[in-house]
Amino acid sequence: MTAQINSIDKYFLQQTIELAVENVKTGKGGPFAAIITKDDKIIANGTNIVTTSHDPTAHAEISAIRNACNVLNDFQLEGCTIYSSCEPCPMCLGAIYWARLKRLLFAADKSQAEKAGFDDAFIYKEIILPYNQRNLTTEQIVLQEDNFPFETWINSNSKIEY
Amino acid sequence: MTAQINSIDKYFLQQTIELAVENVKTGKGGPFAAIITKDDKIIANGTNIVTTSHDPTAHAEISAIRNACNVLNDFQLEGCTIYSSCEPCPMCLGAIYWARLKRLLFAADKSQAEKAGFDDAFIYKEIILPYNQRNLTTEQIVLQEDNFPFETWINSNSKIEY
Repeated sequence: MTAQINSIDKYFLQQTIELAVENVKTGKGGPFAAIITKDDKIIANGTNIVTTSHDPTAHAEISAIRNACNVLNDFQLEGCTIYSSCEPCPMCLGAIYWARLKRLLFAADKSQAEKAGFDDAFIYKEIILPYNQRNLTTEQIVLQEDNFPFETWINSNSKIEY
Repeated sequence: MTAQINSIDKYFLQQTIELAVENVKTGKGGPFAAIITKDDKIIANGTNIVTTSHDPTAHAEISAIRNACNVLNDFQLEGCTIYSSCEPCPMCLGAIYWARLKRLLFAADKSQAEKAGFDDAFIYKEIILPYNQRNLTTEQIVLQEDNFPFETWINSNSKIEY
């Protein structure tokens, strides 16, 4: 779906760019930032803190999602918009779907990230390849009990769906 | 690449299945678990704790990666293997690439997850669609300053690459 863009969208996106520049200058991590809003009010932001937090999943969007969920005390962000200084990588785009965000607006794209030395475009190509064609050694081992967790889940009366 | 499978691989995978079943029974979260090893020794495990931790990114593989990085005090897991009770979703597969894991072995696949009500297969289909064909409202806003973060990064003498 295509977004209806207004001037506040541009404003929030410019803010993410400033945050991303600041993130590099202060040595916190990579050149990425994100802001999450609801009804045009900022709930939380996040920057890339992979190297300083020793967490390879601490990209800007994931940090922003974790921070926003913390603020709202919820595991979903329905109705929210995420602004990102750069097109999310597959990990972060997946996180945006799981968090049930409503809109994604970004400034730079994955080819710009690639030119700056980041693997986003590479990972987009890899994850849709058949297992045996990936750079990452990948294999399914079929086990008799491999559906037990799902059966336990389906039969659980107390589960919280997400 | 195809993995060379041995009996210890099956053993660790069976352990993830047991952990995933236990995770549902104890109400911690969804029916997923992962174990990370190095040289056939367990470094850390992780289970899906999305609902109990109010974190939509707290899938089993991401929890395991964060825990393993915490143990090793590093932001990369080179040479490590991740065992997952189910094929990772795009978010988690992306995280596995960013963490530089060496091998991924999993039991159930994304179609089994789909049958149990999880969006993994849907998200795999979505993220490769052109922006305007996605369910998620997605738009790039081209801004004059959108490359500033990358330029700052490239010109930084003190950056830690990841």
